[in-house]
Amino acid sequence: MRSTVIMREPPSVVSYAAIGGKKEEEGPMGQYFDKINEDPYFSEDTFEKAESQLQKQAVGHALSKGGFSPSDIDVLFGGDLLNQCTGTTYGIKSYEIPFLGIYGACSTMSEGLLLASLFIDREICRKAMAVTSSHFCTAERQYRMPLNYGGQRTPTSQWTATASGALVVSPSEKAPFVRACTIGKIVDMGVTDANNMGAAMAPAAFSTISTFFEETGMSPSDFDHIVTGDLGAVGSSVLCSLFEKSGISIEDRHLDCGKMIYDPDTQDVHAGGSGCGCAGSLLCGYFLPKLREGELHNILFAATGALLSPTVSQQGETIPSISHLAWLSHERG
Amino acid sequence: MRSTVIMREPPSVVSYAAIGGKKEEEGPMGQYFDKINEDPYFSEDTFEKAESQLQKQAVGHALSKGGFSPSDIDVLFGGDLLNQCTGTTYGIKSYEIPFLGIYGACSTMSEGLLLASLFIDREICRKAMAVTSSHFCTAERQYRMPLNYGGQRTPTSQWTATASGALVVSPSEKAPFVRACTIGKIVDMGVTDANNMGAAMAPAAFSTISTFFEETGMSPSDFDHIVTGDLGAVGSSVLCSLFEKSGISIEDRHLDCGKMIYDPDTQDVHAGGSGCGCAGSLLCGYFLPKLREGELHNILFAATGALLSPTVSQQGETIPSISHLAWLSHERG
Repeated sequence: MRSTVIMREPPSVVSYAAIGGKKEEEGPMGQYFDKINEDPYFSEDTFEKAESQLQKQAVGHALSKGGFSPSDIDVLFGGDLLNQCTGTTYGIKSYEIPFLGIYGACSTMSEGLLLASLFIDREICRKAMAVTSSHFCTAERQYRMPLNYGGQRTPTSQWTATASGALVVSPSEKAPFVRACTIGKIVDMGVTDANNMGAAMAPAAFSTISTFFEETGMSPSDFDHIVTGDLGAVGSSVLCSLFEKSGISIEDRHLDCGKMIYDPDTQDVHAGGSGCGCAGSLLCGYFLPKLREGELHNILFAATGALLSPTVSQQGETIPSISHLAWLSHERG
Repeated sequence: MRSTVIMREPPSVVSYAAIGGKKEEEGPMGQYFDKINEDPYFSEDTFEKAESQLQKQAVGHALSKGGFSPSDIDVLFGGDLLNQCTGTTYGIKSYEIPFLGIYGACSTMSEGLLLASLFIDREICRKAMAVTSSHFCTAERQYRMPLNYGGQRTPTSQWTATASGALVVSPSEKAPFVRACTIGKIVDMGVTDANNMGAAMAPAAFSTISTFFEETGMSPSDFDHIVTGDLGAVGSSVLCSLFEKSGISIEDRHLDCGKMIYDPDTQDVHAGGSGCGCAGSLLCGYFLPKLREGELHNILFAATGALLSPTVSQQGETIPSISHLAWLSHERG
């Protein structure tokens, strides 16, 4: 059983867009967003509706930047952290694009990218999209406490990004290309602290990235960066230690979107950023443009998701995690 | 833009299993389940853990009936109705199969079947599984009220089935075969009554089934049955009316899993059964075996999902729905 699929005709990520909020604009990645929304309500009356606007904007920008209309798109893969993935449903329904809902928690951008790429590579269709989002205020209410409660955050906790990323995959000569993907397995190392997701998710990233290296014979030196989704400061150091113990060093080229999106000195985010939109927006706003321009040549993008729910956490369950991976390249190979 | 994909080398559904609870055993479909659990807790201490056991059993039975071990399976598509799809995560994690989480509410069995079939047809892998479940007690607690509350149910409400279905798709000469699939679009006709899901979902089934007929040139008379997931009594009559108005009659061959799974005269289920596990278990327990034996030759299987959440319902949102479709056949074509 192989978990890695090598693309036959590496498809192109022809268009992409990143949308953010005020805090994301104020961070070191602020300049890479296509659009910033200063109002956390996005002119809606609930935070949940605001999160749907995030996805609506991301899909809209990714379409228009590529010169596409919704009817050009054959299938859209999307999901988010809200119960029943309503950020996606209500955000994208007006586009009337054939839709396959996915759930991978914060690994959703990787899952959508790999499914869209496989659909194009194997000629199931001609244009496939992926989208995801997260919103600080909806995530706090759903996973922790409503903001008004004013709860204290633990040092290992992360800050859910108010952000969204969307992309279009199609057969094209335009860089970047998706060269391969690895479908992750659920990994559960017994972590039960829902305020320390980074530690829970790091073993899943380790499992998937190691599997990719084993199955392809490639090594960290083949890549400019090995990018994880939102392990944050705690999870990133766990990941680097796990690789160190297996005799592979990734520390000099590992980047984590959760560590990149905010400034730890000035933004008080504790262990870093998190949420589907964190990795989703930095992939679409920062990494894909640099791969297109040739500033970067090869990266592994491995977003990670913690597959818990508040209900099962309260029932004492451990936190199972998953990571899916895509090899993105400036060259088609 | 076409929503229907015709399989090149129609893959086989080589193995399948259906698991149910006590009420499902007492209904007219009771004899078609591979295993019945009399205890709604499944010997666990919470209903959520019980739902995970449903999926664990379904995957286990589908594997063993096909003579497979978990390591034979390249990818598993799974999801359910619980927040963050934890029924699936905790149910299947011990199998350590590469996993892609999906969310389609009660359309999940269709979505998993079509993704698994496309992965096999386009040679992405050799063996793909799909699984889903629902549990009456977890669904009541999450979507309505805890059982202890003793709330009254409206006449249009449906009874969430405690059931699960799992299947294995692979290249094989063994019937039944997946001949084509249609990816649905989100349809929202403005229904806001969360106790009348059948009416909300019927237009999605109409949209997808009509699209299949238009894109393939086929008609109802090409099929023994047109099977929907869990429209129940109310939704089924809406669906038949919608077709009637478009000049196509499906009434003589339409079957709905929600109408089939319980006896309306003796089981007090109001408008019928519902839940991912309703369509999932009847596909795997009733329809696939009859297609294998040649008792049935061609069916359309179109499960439908209502993509709402309690949060957005309380915020006054309408109920968007989706339906995905697979054409299943005794003949490979």
